[in-house]
Formats: sequence, structure tokens, C-alpha cells
Amino acid sequence: MTEDTFAPGLENVVAGETRLSHVDGEAGDLVIGGFPVEELAANATYEETLFLLWNDRLPTPDELDALRADLASRRALTDETRAVVRAAAEEGADAMDALRMGAAAASLGRSDDDPEAAARTAVARFPTVVATYWRAREGAVPVAPDPDLGHAENYLYMLTGEVPDADATRGLETYLNTVVDHGLNASTFTARTIASTRSDVISAVTGAVGALKGPLHGGAPGPVLDMLLDIEASGDPEAAVRARLDAGERIMGFGHRVYRVRDPRAAVLSAAAERFYDGDGADSAFFSLATEVEEAAQAVLAEHKPDRSLATNVEFYTALLLYGIGVPRDLFAATFGVARVGGWTAHSLEQLDADRLIRPRGRYVGERGRTWTPLDAR
Amino acid sequence: MTEDTFAPGLENVVAGETRLSHVDGEAGDLVIGGFPVEELAANATYEETLFLLWNDRLPTPDELDALRADLASRRALTDETRAVVRAAAEEGADAMDALRMGAAAASLGRSDDDPEAAARTAVARFPTVVATYWRAREGAVPVAPDPDLGHAENYLYMLTGEVPDADATRGLETYLNTVVDHGLNASTFTARTIASTRSDVISAVTGAVGALKGPLHGGAPGPVLDMLLDIEASGDPEAAVRARLDAGERIMGFGHRVYRVRDPRAAVLSAAAERFYDGDGADSAFFSLATEVEEAAQAVLAEHKPDRSLATNVEFYTALLLYGIGVPRDLFAATFGVARVGGWTAHSLEQLDADRLIRPRGRYVGERGRTWTPLDAR
Repeated sequence: MTEDTFAPGLENVVAGETRLSHVDGEAGDLVIGGFPVEELAANATYEETLFLLWNDRLPTPDELDALRADLASRRALTDETRAVVRAAAEEGADAMDALRMGAAAASLGRSDDDPEAAARTAVARFPTVVATYWRAREGAVPVAPDPDLGHAENYLYMLTGEVPDADATRGLETYLNTVVDHGLNASTFTARTIASTRSDVISAVTGAVGALKGPLHGGAPGPVLDMLLDIEASGDPEAAVRARLDAGERIMGFGHRVYRVRDPRAAVLSAAAERFYDGDGADSAFFSLATEVEEAAQAVLAEHKPDRSLATNVEFYTALLLYGIGVPRDLFAATFGVARVGGWTAHSLEQLDADRLIRPRGRYVGERGRTWTPLDAR
Repeated sequence: MTEDTFAPGLENVVAGETRLSHVDGEAGDLVIGGFPVEELAANATYEETLFLLWNDRLPTPDELDALRADLASRRALTDETRAVVRAAAEEGADAMDALRMGAAAASLGRSDDDPEAAARTAVARFPTVVATYWRAREGAVPVAPDPDLGHAENYLYMLTGEVPDADATRGLETYLNTVVDHGLNASTFTARTIASTRSDVISAVTGAVGALKGPLHGGAPGPVLDMLLDIEASGDPEAAVRARLDAGERIMGFGHRVYRVRDPRAAVLSAAAERFYDGDGADSAFFSLATEVEEAAQAVLAEHKPDRSLATNVEFYTALLLYGIGVPRDLFAATFGVARVGGWTAHSLEQLDADRLIRPRGRYVGERGRTWTPLDAR
């Protein structure tokens, strides 16, 4: 019998093979579907990225048209699903709770017998769930999906009721591509574990939403935005950064668990944010403020923690970019889910294909040999 | 840097410590909350088992009363949750899909800020979800939960509209206790992975339902019942078993992946089934038939596969017991979920307490360095 490996966080355990993405934390590289993230994120529409992940190649024009039309046809939720998501919004539940409910019910009204079809349904319906939640939370009339709009464009349209301009759509699309997949992180691994029992793709992505909800998953752009808005109000970025550090508070948006050098996604999103804020109608003053905060934070952190790599991370630029294009702060995590569901579905399909049950062991540390005491003797 | 361990199914990887249950497959032992399963399952009410898993000791009479009352107060679903579950039933979805939807929405109508409260809500609502699904599927009027009934008793009451007799309740209770927890199986591990991100208990058990749905998870009592009913119709158990093996079909209900000797749960459920079918009003002829099938299968399998351990497994007796007490065949898997949610919640709480992210690595086997080809050049 093989020796057991004790690895409670599974840090150095390779839990499967994948052709979907590769995270090289030492070198600061991220490969998605064979492309360096820089190459993919800036060029692809989200639909092209989906096709790439599901098929390991880019689509022809006809294939892309077919996929766009198919996804657009799957966006609408059933009445009962909408009602559950609205109820969540009305009682003040978090957007991630609403997304979990909508994801779980995403199979309603469809009979997707093959996993690929279920994957398309999941991806198509996630933005509708989030937008339905948001409109209800705002007390606004719901906006039905528009099948003539692309995936990213339609998401912004359902959130705001207005067709977004090309800059906002491109900004969102770059974001969705950049964070669509990232190795076997906890939510992706959850999806794979569920799929490993030969369960279905909707079940897999529903579980993944639950894992993404947790604050240790690593996406916290909301607090970054809160910090930027606070510092903007203070009027003096460097003083505000120093005051925070002196008060023992964390400066949000710097450092990453996996990447030692730099997070390659940060560079992509930094460029996307700069491009977006450079465009007509964008709030360029907010971008300047963020740049000042970044410079101040880097300088002050270098003084306080000279030995640690505290490069600006993906959450910092995510907050900047999503805020700019008009995604509400309380939807940042759910919008991460709208992006990552592409990766989750691809990993689920890959795991179904591998057809290998994921079933670790536990180390028992409890009592043994207890004997029953009747209730009246306790 | 530590060497990576390649373990795609995690078979010999110990993914965490637990005091909840211990599976010793070599010896054929199962410990649940410190008790041998034989000791616990036959003595405890399901509420006592829950208290044991959550608190690592048996409750006093007052604590048990308080827990029973608290659970009973949490059973009702919101209107929107009921509507989603009914919609699933009406469109012919599997009970496990309905359970996933109901589990995901189990936080609605409550504000359970602490994880222990969320655990109680999850456990309390699972039977209501399954019964709501079943009544809708049968076109029957829904049955509201009765707070004066115990957990197991109320589940059977909501399914049938009639308060069950003591034998049926005891039979179900023994089943629920026997399968409440079983090490880090795929669904339990899913719940722990979700909780490891500091997500919430409802998200964790929702993911677990998805994993339990998969046929590789290891619970397939439905096909066992189908086989028993087929063989009953044929009139000659031994000939029917031989005919199946000769036709290359599997004999359902024998052998287990983990236990080399015998599955200790099988002995507990065998005794429970025997006791139940011995009681007034039970279909003792069906029990005799099952015994004949078991003897024939053991004899014929010993001839065909002399080298393999093919002891009667937990699914065989589960089918026999659940069928006897009136749980519909199409609810066998969901009833497994009604039992196992006790274990899932306890593991989620234990993992939240351990506060360690579960995040393995993947081995990348895809392309690298692809360069972008514009759409019109493909």
C-alpha cells in the first residue's frame, strides 16, 4: 500500500492534469488556453475565449456566430428562478448568495442532456442572474436580455438599461478574459471535485460559486474601491496611506499568495484601465488619484516592509476598471463569477472526460469506542 | 520548495484532520462521533446524532429538547423556494436537482449570521425540499411540516401526509444515523473545500448535494430495488441472478470500493431491515425474496469471481429498508442527502474552525506561446 501524504491544504499536491491554464508564480506567467494572458485578454471577445477553453482552438467566423447566437438564446431565466433571485435581493442577501441560488436553478426550463449544452446554459445565465438581483435591489424595473448584444455588452445593458459604449464593453471583455481561469484554485477545484463523481455541469458551477464567495478565495476588489474612495475624500493620498499603516490597517490591493514576481493579470488590467480612463466620458481624475495612491503605497510599503514583494495586484486594477465601466461595487465578486464560470465549465468538462473520482482521506483525531448512555442517565 | 505530489484522484492524500468519523476499510470498522456505527445507529435519534457531531458529546434531555424545537422551527421554506422546487418537479427534473435548488435557497427568509445556526437551517430544510418536490411530482397537495413531530417522523409525514408508525420512524432513523458521515468522501470533501475559503455553510452543503448526485459517489440503492422487483417478478431468484451474470450484467448491491472485509453499515441496515419487516403490516414476503436473492447472488458471484470480495453492501440493505418504510425509489439519493447533510454541516463547521484554504495545483499539459490570429484570418 502506498504511503499516505499528509497535506491539509493540498498546497503541493497536483490534483489533476489540465490543458486550460497554467500559473507560474515564480516567473510571473499565466497561460490561458495556450496563450499568454496578455495576448489573449486584449484581443479576444469573451465568446472567443469560451470557444478556446471548450475546444482548445479559436473559432472560425461561422463557429463564432453560431456560439454567440446559441449563448444569446439561453440567457432568459424562468419565472421561478427570477422570483428566488429577486427575493434574495429584497431581503438584503449578498449578490453571491443570489448567484448561488440562480446557478442552482439554471437547469430549469431547459433539457440540456449533454454537458456541453449545460456549460453554455450556465455561462449564458450567470449575467442574467446578477443583473436580475441588481435591478431588484435597486428597485428598478428588470431589463430583459437583448439577443442582438454580445455577452459582455448585454451584461452591462441588463445592469443599467442602457447599451454601453464600445470602451466600456471592451474594458469588461478584457476583464472577463483576464480572470476567466487560473489553475486549480479553490472554486475551480470544487467544480472538478463535483464533476469527478460524474455529476452535471450545473451542479459543478453551483458549488464553485459557493467557494468563490469565501474571502480566502483571493478576490477582494470591493475593499480596494472603498479605500480609494476614502482616500479620494481625504485629499492627500500619501498622508492617507501613511495614516492607515500607522493605524495598523492593511493597504488593500498589494501582494499575492501565488505570484512572487508580479501578477501578469495586473499588467493587463492596468493597461485596460488606463485605456478606458483615457477615453471620452471617463472619470480621468479618479484614475489619476488611483495612480497617486499606488505610488504612495509602493513607496510607503517599501519603507515598512522592505523584504516583502508587495506589487500592485489584480484586485487593485479590477476595482479601478470595474468602477470605471459602471459595475456596482457590490457586484464585484459576482462579476468575477460571471467571468470565471467560463473556466469552471471548461474544467468540469475536462474532469468529466478524465472520469476519475476525487476522494481523499481524512486523519481521524476523535475518540473511539464510546458506549451509549441512555438519555435519562445523562 | 517541497516536492510536488502527483495524485489525480487524491486516493492516498490526507486532506485534513477530523474528529467526525473514521473509516477503516481494512478492518471493516466505522466510527461516528466516537461511537462504533453499530452502537450509535441503533440507539440514537437523528437529533441526538446531530448534537453529537456538532458538539462531540451526547445532549442532556434539556439540550435535546431545545435542539428538537429549534430544528422544528426552521423547517418551512419560503414561497419562492417552494415554487422553484415545484417547478423542478413539474418539468420532470431529478430529485437531486430539486434538492440542489432548495439547498441553494435555504438561506432565504432567515438571517443566520453564525455558522451553527446556518447548519441547523440546512438540516431542518432538506426534508422539506425533498417532500415538496415529491408531492408536486405526484400531483398531491403539499403537506406542511408538523413541529410536534421529530425530524425523521416529520419527513415521512410530509412525504405521505400520514404520521408514520413507530417501526417506520425507527427504521428511517437508523438509516439516517448509519449514513450520516463517512470520512472525506467526495461530497463531504466538496463541502470542506467550499468552507475552506471561509464561505458559508449553506454554500458548502449546496456544493455537496451536487457531488452526491454523481453516480460515482457510490450510492445506488435505486438500481438495487429495480433489480429486486425484476427478480421478484421472474419468480426464480437463483435463475434470475445467473441469467443476469450470463448476460454480462452487474448484480447490484455487492462489493464496495473502500471496505475490503465488510461494510459495517451493511450489518446495521441488515438488522434494521430484518426488524422492520418482522413488524406488523410490513411486506415480509419481499424481505424473504431479498434474502433469497442475496444468497443466490453470493453463491453465484463466488463461482464467477472467486478472488473478489463481493459482500452485500450498504446499497442493498438501503434499498430494502427504504422501500419497506415507504420512501419512494426516486427519492433514495435525495434521502441519502437528507441524512448526509448532518455530516456535511459538521465538516463545514470543523473546516471553518481549522481555517485553512484547500488549494491544490494542476499539472499543465496544454500548449504554450500561442499567438493571436485575427478572426478574418481563420
